Amino acid sequence: MIPYQIIEKKSRGDVLNDGEIRDFINGYTDGSIPDYQMSALLMAIFIRGMNTDETLSLTRCMLESGERMDFGALPGFIADKHSTGGVGDKISILLAPIMAVLGVYIPMISGRGLGHSGGTLDKLESIPGFNVNLSLEEWRKLVMEEHVGLIGQTGTICPADKKIYSLRDVTATVRSIPLISASIMSKKIAEGIQGLVLDVKTGNGAFMQSLDDSRTLAKSLVHIGNGYGIKTTALITDMNQPLGKAIGNWFEIRESVLGLQGDGPEDVMEITYALGAEILQMANPDLSREEAIKRQKKTISDGSAFEKLLKIVALQGGDPKVLENMETYPKTRYRESIKANQSGYLTHIDTMAMGFAGIQLGAGRRVISDRIDYSSGMYIHKRLGEKVDAGAEVLTLYSNDENALKEVKKQLSTSLSFTDSPAAIPPLIVEKIQ
Amino acid sequence: MIPYQIIEKKSRGDVLNDGEIRDFINGYTDGSIPDYQMSALLMAIFIRGMNTDETLSLTRCMLESGERMDFGALPGFIADKHSTGGVGDKISILLAPIMAVLGVYIPMISGRGLGHSGGTLDKLESIPGFNVNLSLEEWRKLVMEEHVGLIGQTGTICPADKKIYSLRDVTATVRSIPLISASIMSKKIAEGIQGLVLDVKTGNGAFMQSLDDSRTLAKSLVHIGNGYGIKTTALITDMNQPLGKAIGNWFEIRESVLGLQGDGPEDVMEITYALGAEILQMANPDLSREEAIKRQKKTISDGSAFEKLLKIVALQGGDPKVLENMETYPKTRYRESIKANQSGYLTHIDTMAMGFAGIQLGAGRRVISDRIDYSSGMYIHKRLGEKVDAGAEVLTLYSNDENALKEVKKQLSTSLSFTDSPAAIPPLIVEKIQ
Repeated sequence: MIPYQIIEKKSRGDVLNDGEIRDFINGYTDGSIPDYQMSALLMAIFIRGMNTDETLSLTRCMLESGERMDFGALPGFIADKHSTGGVGDKISILLAPIMAVLGVYIPMISGRGLGHSGGTLDKLESIPGFNVNLSLEEWRKLVMEEHVGLIGQTGTICPADKKIYSLRDVTATVRSIPLISASIMSKKIAEGIQGLVLDVKTGNGAFMQSLDDSRTLAKSLVHIGNGYGIKTTALITDMNQPLGKAIGNWFEIRESVLGLQGDGPEDVMEITYALGAEILQMANPDLSREEAIKRQKKTISDGSAFEKLLKIVALQGGDPKVLENMETYPKTRYRESIKANQSGYLTHIDTMAMGFAGIQLGAGRRVISDRIDYSSGMYIHKRLGEKVDAGAEVLTLYSNDENALKEVKKQLSTSLSFTDSPAAIPPLIVEKIQ
Repeated sequence: MIPYQIIEKKSRGDVLNDGEIRDFINGYTDGSIPDYQMSALLMAIFIRGMNTDETLSLTRCMLESGERMDFGALPGFIADKHSTGGVGDKISILLAPIMAVLGVYIPMISGRGLGHSGGTLDKLESIPGFNVNLSLEEWRKLVMEEHVGLIGQTGTICPADKKIYSLRDVTATVRSIPLISASIMSKKIAEGIQGLVLDVKTGNGAFMQSLDDSRTLAKSLVHIGNGYGIKTTALITDMNQPLGKAIGNWFEIRESVLGLQGDGPEDVMEITYALGAEILQMANPDLSREEAIKRQKKTISDGSAFEKLLKIVALQGGDPKVLENMETYPKTRYRESIKANQSGYLTHIDTMAMGFAGIQLGAGRRVISDRIDYSSGMYIHKRLGEKVDAGAEVLTLYSNDENALKEVKKQLSTSLSFTDSPAAIPPLIVEKIQ
């Protein structure tokens, strides 16, 4: 079957078989199929979709294009957590050390900022010296000895996904459930994990904004994970407002540290514990949810989770002192406040606009070559449903770019809505898919 | 508007505005938008379609990407004919000299073989020495002095179309009504013509197999032509069997010469005269169809149309002697016959299979770098509806490639169906769109 015919078949909406998917993905990975044919196929998949068999085939091809970790017989459960991405989502930075302290092995491969959404790797790199580019061997050693290692996708893990991902990013084919599913799951399966908890975001700051789409994505991810013998559950969680108060790389590291020191925002802690409980219950099905949460809280109150983060930071080349003395971190030159222009209940936050505003302030990249300004970002002081007095500060913006700051201030002044009476607030954890 | 957002908009099925189409096409033509983004947009257009305004914008962008001929005030009507492509379609080679003799100026820019379908340029090049790569200036002079010049698309005529066309050809986005419409019409409008007759093929040997699709395409083409002030009509004609008996480059030139000598197949002559009558009636609305056909027949009976062809061939570097002594043309080394395996009425011909078979015999290119064997091809001796006796020869295949010949003989033996009683035969000229 020639590439042309495979593209044509999918463009008609027909189902591709395993061999066709394999030939095309392998041909693209080895360079015999050019970018322009792959982008035509990606667009056909984007519009026509893929069924679960096709998605499984695609996942398998991506997985088999590279190395797959095998930790062998470790004296503990090997698991990971993945979020589909939102604004202010720093959960991995809290969850990884908590799980490590509780005996779980977390071989975490994370991503960078994407679209309006931040990335764990960028956040970690705001810690001076932190190295996310360990070799697979160094990382493996770290996971086995310290229970956790935090790296980015290497050239040898799912190279097919890596190549296809960059193409999707410039051809408007990112937001496709089968393509997202195969991309996420191939990398997670390659980690050699036994359990996976997915945080599938829904709402106006998520890639999948409708609950229906989020549910479809969650089911697709869980289906693939279970198909590979990985215990997989997904929590669909609300992204109609930023998670926590901090948006921006260092600000989010700071908020994570506060969380590990017992001073984190309620929503951040609730999601951390809920995802952690999923992992702990996978590792030990007899454990109650209450007990799973209690154990996690203890790693905060006794300081062991924060100690673990400091250790990991140090082992990955970072400077732990800046986490112990956070006021020493460089400040931005400029700041601006956005105040409520009326009294009322905060009923709507344009979360995606906030994510894009963060990028404009310097916290993300507009093009791949942009350098991130780790000190920039914003704090949101009010939450959906909260009563706000006219003139109260709702957002504080920080940037080293005075023009961007002014521009963002103007843009975000229309990103909040207030009503006279309190409106229904979406639940933080919407539902569980397993 | 960035390319990404334009692709995304079309992938959702939204309508692109003129500025968006212009930015994308210009960006692609000047190289600032890469192939892979254009192929994603082409696939989105292929699946989602374009409305008439979008198609007009696309046509305009392609047209304005290059030179547009202007013949100024010529003492005669300037017109052209275009076929959407089929098997055995050699009408241009007869029609151009007939029209030229009758005073019409025919600045004809033709194409090469495409998919299963042959191309006028390839056929002309089977005449030793014939040069289809004249400069626009040489061509212009030929048209003005001899009323007809036969060339291929140059780099300066619709370069945007040329670049997009090659990409469509390898990304399975050829068979799209808006893309076909803009591609055909931009080139025809660039010829500087006043009238255009379109031969839109329908049936199992056409790119648009259903009458509905053919009608939609015809209407789209006519709409664009009229929008540019060109008198445009379309005949939808049957392509459920090859046109004439000859398939293959030299064989089709030979059949055209026979036609101009008064010995052409009935269907070839009927379509030639019908298309010619359209042009003559555009040039002179008072002329009756009968008179228009009578005048054309006279150019055959008095030998003037054949004389004109000989002159054009000579002026474009070709050897006219081979047209006067056609038996001197090189023959293929091998030939094979396919005979009817039963008696009955011929009710079905797999016309597309015949087109592809011609390519396999050497008459077309499988990849762009293939060299055509101009002597190869086939003759079909029976027509739909004809009573055939068991054992009668239906097809004669000619090739210099013995293996290909055997392969094609096997393939084509199932390409014909017979029934005991005569079935309804589709009309040759189905309808007229204006």
